[in-house]
Amino acid sequence: MLTLALESSAKAASAAVFEDDRMLAFSIQNAGLTHSRTLLPMAEDMLKNLGRTVRDLDRVAVSRGPGSFTGLRIGLAEAKGLCWALQIPAVGVSTLEAMACGGPVLDGQMLCCCMDARRGQVYNALFTVDGGRPVRLTEDRAISIRELESELVARQEPWILLGDGAELCYGALDREQVTVFIAPEPLRVQNARGVALAAMDKKPVSADELLPAYLRLSQAERERLSRIDEKA
Amino acid sequence: MLTLALESSAKAASAAVFEDDRMLAFSIQNAGLTHSRTLLPMAEDMLKNLGRTVRDLDRVAVSRGPGSFTGLRIGLAEAKGLCWALQIPAVGVSTLEAMACGGPVLDGQMLCCCMDARRGQVYNALFTVDGGRPVRLTEDRAISIRELESELVARQEPWILLGDGAELCYGALDREQVTVFIAPEPLRVQNARGVALAAMDKKPVSADELLPAYLRLSQAERERLSRIDEKA
Repeated sequence: MLTLALESSAKAASAAVFEDDRMLAFSIQNAGLTHSRTLLPMAEDMLKNLGRTVRDLDRVAVSRGPGSFTGLRIGLAEAKGLCWALQIPAVGVSTLEAMACGGPVLDGQMLCCCMDARRGQVYNALFTVDGGRPVRLTEDRAISIRELESELVARQEPWILLGDGAELCYGALDREQVTVFIAPEPLRVQNARGVALAAMDKKPVSADELLPAYLRLSQAERERLSRIDEKA
Repeated sequence: MLTLALESSAKAASAAVFEDDRMLAFSIQNAGLTHSRTLLPMAEDMLKNLGRTVRDLDRVAVSRGPGSFTGLRIGLAEAKGLCWALQIPAVGVSTLEAMACGGPVLDGQMLCCCMDARRGQVYNALFTVDGGRPVRLTEDRAISIRELESELVARQEPWILLGDGAELCYGALDREQVTVFIAPEPLRVQNARGVALAAMDKKPVSADELLPAYLRLSQAERERLSRIDEKA
């Protein structure tokens, strides 16, 4: 089964091609160009260099959130377009779970996946590793760093920080209360390899069932609601 | 300074583009296709997707060995061709040092870089990490796993095994004598990101000064020498 995985929830865009559980190719780009310009050409070039075409794909995996609203929309729109055109299923995975799957996976490790959600919050989920795979300890949520700190302290384990919010958390957490390490660079940030790995045991859906998981309203929606409130 | 880094010393081929010390893009391919077919198209596609061309390059970094003779020749020939045509300098780096630079780099870690050299030997070098960078403890060499074991035991540290020989060594070393861990997958095997990082502090050379470091004679050369011996 040939899977194309796409990741565009943050600054870097990346794509991976897996044959069953084996990674055939992986590309990542972090040059500040818009994902709408980089993501599909990257996937197309990878398939071409593998001697495959888009018509050989059996499914498309994509991170569906949380993350940058624009980034997620680009990844999801491209996955939907491909799946609809090719009549193949899609698999949407949690950005935070993809991060955990693509990170360090020694049994017993405790993984704290975090993305900067602005406004004093992080998008976060906690995992432990069992049998070489991350096992969820919490749902994906948007929480304050202080709330996160209480949870980490309560569980009393050394934690490995993953994600583009790892450095933010490392700086903001009280490290006298909780022991944390930042994962080494290529394992730290969400990428398409993690998306493909997270998709392995997930049920595929049709293109139109593939939906984003923003965890929070967009700025435009928040402003609209506050205008409605003011009028009321 | 724009650097293109190439790695083709083993099964996977990879390329990376760095702007000074920042990785703009990285690609790896491990589908069993010959590096002569995959390496340059991969680099060309990356530059194109970054909105750059080969004429924007300031230098080319490449792993010059040890490794697969054919793989190394392809990488070096492509680097030489590019540097000669563009009149830019080249940087050849040790495959084993590139592996260490691209691996886990927490201060105090001990890195054992190993590639299967067949005939009961590994290509190996040992590093420790200081100030976030690997520092050499040994030269690159081809040694037997038993000799390597004695050295690891003598230094009495937990060792992190890196390279395509990591699993071979993990299986062959007496783990009652020496504590070893295998690095997590994307950090384990040599790749162009490590080549670019290893090249940072190296003196560039001209295209014709760029030479392979095989550490050992090729099979053809060994057979020729043994025929000469027989005749003598």
